[in-house]
Amino acid sequence: MTNAKFIVIEGLEGAGKSSAINAVLETLKQSGVDAITNTREPGGTALAEKLRTLVKQEHEGEQLQDMTELLLMYAARVQLVENVIKPALTSGTWVVGDRHDMSSQAYQGGGRKIPAATMLALKQTTLGDFKPDLTIYLDIDPRVGLERARGRGELDRIEKMDMSFFDRTRERYLQLAEQDESVVVVNAEQDIDKVAADISNVLTSWMKA
Amino acid sequence: MTNAKFIVIEGLEGAGKSSAINAVLETLKQSGVDAITNTREPGGTALAEKLRTLVKQEHEGEQLQDMTELLLMYAARVQLVENVIKPALTSGTWVVGDRHDMSSQAYQGGGRKIPAATMLALKQTTLGDFKPDLTIYLDIDPRVGLERARGRGELDRIEKMDMSFFDRTRERYLQLAEQDESVVVVNAEQDIDKVAADISNVLTSWMKA
Repeated sequence: MTNAKFIVIEGLEGAGKSSAINAVLETLKQSGVDAITNTREPGGTALAEKLRTLVKQEHEGEQLQDMTELLLMYAARVQLVENVIKPALTSGTWVVGDRHDMSSQAYQGGGRKIPAATMLALKQTTLGDFKPDLTIYLDIDPRVGLERARGRGELDRIEKMDMSFFDRTRERYLQLAEQDESVVVVNAEQDIDKVAADISNVLTSWMKA
Repeated sequence: MTNAKFIVIEGLEGAGKSSAINAVLETLKQSGVDAITNTREPGGTALAEKLRTLVKQEHEGEQLQDMTELLLMYAARVQLVENVIKPALTSGTWVVGDRHDMSSQAYQGGGRKIPAATMLALKQTTLGDFKPDLTIYLDIDPRVGLERARGRGELDRIEKMDMSFFDRTRERYLQLAEQDESVVVVNAEQDIDKVAADISNVLTSWMKA
């Protein structure tokens, strides 16, 4: 094993994940660490990107079952983890991920209310013990985040869910962050420079520890 | 609940599943039973057919992980079961399926050697207690079946596996048939008329029981 780390940025729509990833990369660069970032989830491989499209698009005349959504998320994740993330880490390259398993726990487990036993069975079956070394969760009120996201264009199938869905998703994110010491919460409602500074501080302290 | 039944035809490539489905439909018709048959697996809904294509095609430069293959099979199955098969049965319409979960158990569990605990976890998580009322497994030596299938045109990603894969798949089919009294084995190496007659006899006896 090498010492390369897997760092993940998590958060609701409009929380500022892209800016956060840039802040992480900048901080890593200052420590002389190169990282790959072409690992958004769902996506990051040719097949996983096709699955991303299927998950996000509307399916006219056919209900996309919550369980199907969950299975497709994990199918994309397995392709990415096995074909991209693990090989990168093994070769000594750090990986900065735009979402990972915590998104499924929050959106499908919290938002869609898929039972905890089901969520755990799928996670264990597909990922085993694999998990990020550090997750930075960008916390934001969904009302604020979706307003930002709307400014970027049309919303996809999941982004069109009602507010209670996003409230449940945020609540699950916060619960998970409290239970897992590898997750750090950053207040994403702050000014964008302050968020970037917080991320940089979190990362710098973590790398020293 | 209605009295409608879910009958599945299973078997390796070239075992004669299409002819068998016709034999089942003919026998049902003689008993005054109408059935739907647009439920091949993977497939049978617009989304499930897209997943079928992804599973069967080659992915240049990207390894399709065995676990991903399994997750996509179940994603397609959930769409079909929840959106087509269960509603049909509930409305009193019989369903004759071209493959179902036994294919995953045989191909991914037997052929790909995915561990039994993994196979069971996914099946339970996605299907619960749902299963066919009757499965007719068309048993054939893969050497004979693939020779027939080859006559139909180019082989897909899974059909191109080596013979030991198909030997393991057949072995698992036979093991499962022995353990489950809702599965009946028909010798598919016989003359096509004899196979059809066997199927008709199996079905007629089962409907009387």
